[in-house]
Amino acid sequence: MTESNSILIKDTTIISDETKKASILIVDDTIQEISTKLNKNDAEKVIDGTNKITMPGLINTHSHVAMTLLRGVGDDQSLQTWLNEYIWPKEANLNEELVYLGSKLAMAEMIKTGTTTFNDMYFYVEETAKAVDESGIRAVLGYGMIDLFDEEKMKSELKTSEQLIKSCHNTCENRIKVAVAPHAPYTCSEELLVKSKQLATKNDLKLHIHVSETKQEVEDIAKDKKETPFKYLDNIGVLDSNTIAAHGVWTTADEMNIIKEKGVSIAHNPSSNMKLASGIAPIAEYLEKGINVGIGTDGVSSNNNLDMFSEMKLTAFLQKVNLLDPRVLPTKDTFDMATKNGAKALGLNTGIIEEGKLADIILVDTLVPHMTPLRNALSNIIYSSLGTDVDTVICNGNILMENKVLKTINEQEIIQEVNERAFEL
Amino acid sequence: MTESNSILIKDTTIISDETKKASILIVDDTIQEISTKLNKNDAEKVIDGTNKITMPGLINTHSHVAMTLLRGVGDDQSLQTWLNEYIWPKEANLNEELVYLGSKLAMAEMIKTGTTTFNDMYFYVEETAKAVDESGIRAVLGYGMIDLFDEEKMKSELKTSEQLIKSCHNTCENRIKVAVAPHAPYTCSEELLVKSKQLATKNDLKLHIHVSETKQEVEDIAKDKKETPFKYLDNIGVLDSNTIAAHGVWTTADEMNIIKEKGVSIAHNPSSNMKLASGIAPIAEYLEKGINVGIGTDGVSSNNNLDMFSEMKLTAFLQKVNLLDPRVLPTKDTFDMATKNGAKALGLNTGIIEEGKLADIILVDTLVPHMTPLRNALSNIIYSSLGTDVDTVICNGNILMENKVLKTINEQEIIQEVNERAFEL
Repeated sequence: MTESNSILIKDTTIISDETKKASILIVDDTIQEISTKLNKNDAEKVIDGTNKITMPGLINTHSHVAMTLLRGVGDDQSLQTWLNEYIWPKEANLNEELVYLGSKLAMAEMIKTGTTTFNDMYFYVEETAKAVDESGIRAVLGYGMIDLFDEEKMKSELKTSEQLIKSCHNTCENRIKVAVAPHAPYTCSEELLVKSKQLATKNDLKLHIHVSETKQEVEDIAKDKKETPFKYLDNIGVLDSNTIAAHGVWTTADEMNIIKEKGVSIAHNPSSNMKLASGIAPIAEYLEKGINVGIGTDGVSSNNNLDMFSEMKLTAFLQKVNLLDPRVLPTKDTFDMATKNGAKALGLNTGIIEEGKLADIILVDTLVPHMTPLRNALSNIIYSSLGTDVDTVICNGNILMENKVLKTINEQEIIQEVNERAFEL
Repeated sequence: MTESNSILIKDTTIISDETKKASILIVDDTIQEISTKLNKNDAEKVIDGTNKITMPGLINTHSHVAMTLLRGVGDDQSLQTWLNEYIWPKEANLNEELVYLGSKLAMAEMIKTGTTTFNDMYFYVEETAKAVDESGIRAVLGYGMIDLFDEEKMKSELKTSEQLIKSCHNTCENRIKVAVAPHAPYTCSEELLVKSKQLATKNDLKLHIHVSETKQEVEDIAKDKKETPFKYLDNIGVLDSNTIAAHGVWTTADEMNIIKEKGVSIAHNPSSNMKLASGIAPIAEYLEKGINVGIGTDGVSSNNNLDMFSEMKLTAFLQKVNLLDPRVLPTKDTFDMATKNGAKALGLNTGIIEEGKLADIILVDTLVPHMTPLRNALSNIIYSSLGTDVDTVICNGNILMENKVLKTINEQEIIQEVNERAFEL
């Protein structure tokens, strides 16, 4: 990454809580000043913000980034066939080196499409952390614990999470936070879920879990626990404002009240929910109730990319058509989900361009046909832009991409390496 | 455009009815040979197809291209507010020059994102034709006739269509076909619809019309005509294999049988149907019945771009989630809709890479993170790619873009001009 103590983004169109023209001064890792009066002598490095939309880096609140290795595996299959015959057999062959490569490739993709923070759940997490260290991106990393109701497995899974906390939490200039990540209520024993929450609370960490993704899962839990998934998790004390629940597709009205009351954040994954045919999450209702909702991509083989711009557009579109009401999910609501709501879910001082916030900022090119005319910058970002319009990416005050060139990752090298090695799976 | 009598696309991954590695020889406007044995001396111009996916140019079967001028106008409004307060007042200020500019901008956008043919309905069509001539793209152009049940208006609308046929049909090296385009059953008198069909038949032209886009429209026609929209159109003789019906969202089982029997093609517009909250068209059922379905973008202010790659992904995703079945709309079905089904709808000898077909071909870059690894080229095209991955575009045997640089349009000039002029509306 380009190391500069201070960066000035000069004369740009800023979209955040309001849209305005100004310059932004970054000192170290922080947004120090936003003003129309800054000039080029105020910083060591000056970026011309003319003809660019400058906005918070996007926050991907649910991912399994190393799954880039599985791009294109098992498309158009039923969920159980997809898992049993395609994904799980290949994941069984994963190793440290492959997870590192898949993670690094994902970071190249995320940075190129404007994501500066992601919330991940997977295996060999130290390898993903190594790629985070090198790439300069920000991440919340959890080890995906699955005990399948086996007590020995439960103990070893918790131990792996404890080790991860020690090795990675608050490392890489604080860019990495560790979360406790029990996979889901249907793959984890009650004891694992309870102990996960205790571990999270003891270390003041987020808890990241899949909840209510498919109808089948909801029916299974109803049979087994005589409860809806969120109610069950609430009964055993797992839900509070440190919980990030991925999906929340089949939530009942009672569950929504619990989610709201406990301050749980939802990570919505529209592409994954559509591609796997999981269902349409009641996002407009969540927002109406004041529930905090972020947006995620989920893993690449249920998407099949990590472009958060596509996810924003899909988030809005899917609610509109599902409710037959074009007025729901107006642009600002969608934008907030992908930025400041995501930061709130993850407990990070980012997701908004404001003095004192972490300098996680992206610049989007406007001089392309599909962003013309520029009547309304926010509208063009949500409905017209493509992830590849991102021109420059700053994370934690460091430039990770400038003029579409990655600074911290050798893009063609990682592409070539993954093309050669992914087939080992 | 670069004029070459012969072009060789060498050593490439071709996706069409099957995926294979070969080279393609284009002579004049036609694909002359596809073989692994072609060598660089076989053509005047050689394009390196290594690390590229080569596929038919995409076919946008329903557009109003000059509406690029209205990008970002009236987002998130109810349909009637959107039309009455935003779109129609601005369209009232349209003139020849603005339609030319908006069309030219749209062609820059379409070529950059891999569209080589579009089927348009709008006003000042000769201006769009002028932009087609200059840009080298292929188009079916119709004047959008609306008489609002006024007899004088009906006559003048038909006259405008007749003039358009004379001035534009089969012009620009045959790249332009004219269609007869009565707007919709709820904006056109029965007499206009009948005479439109007569005009189309007399001149052997396609008839392009909006049908069954919104629930409201279906209810209005039920009240007025005591019929469903397709049944009404069939009763008055408008439907046959030369009819392209845009939308077809609220179609009944009886109507589907008529559509199938008469050989009508449907132009599906997933982004527009979602953004305007029109509804979810029964595409999987259409395909199951053997109905020919193409894909379109509709106008930019209900989308808000012209990226057919996004439309392909959305087409598949929307059917999967709506039917809660991830197996519907597998990749090849979606691909066919955007290519050869579109060509069939428009009656054009294109949409497939095959000897004897028109040379409308695009090359897509694979050496980008979101297209890595390249396990399955077709999957990466449908689910992973973004429109901006298109590297090279050939239409009618002419190179319109090479290495992402437009050859027939001064991109920055048209962007600047539209940014200055669009606000006149």
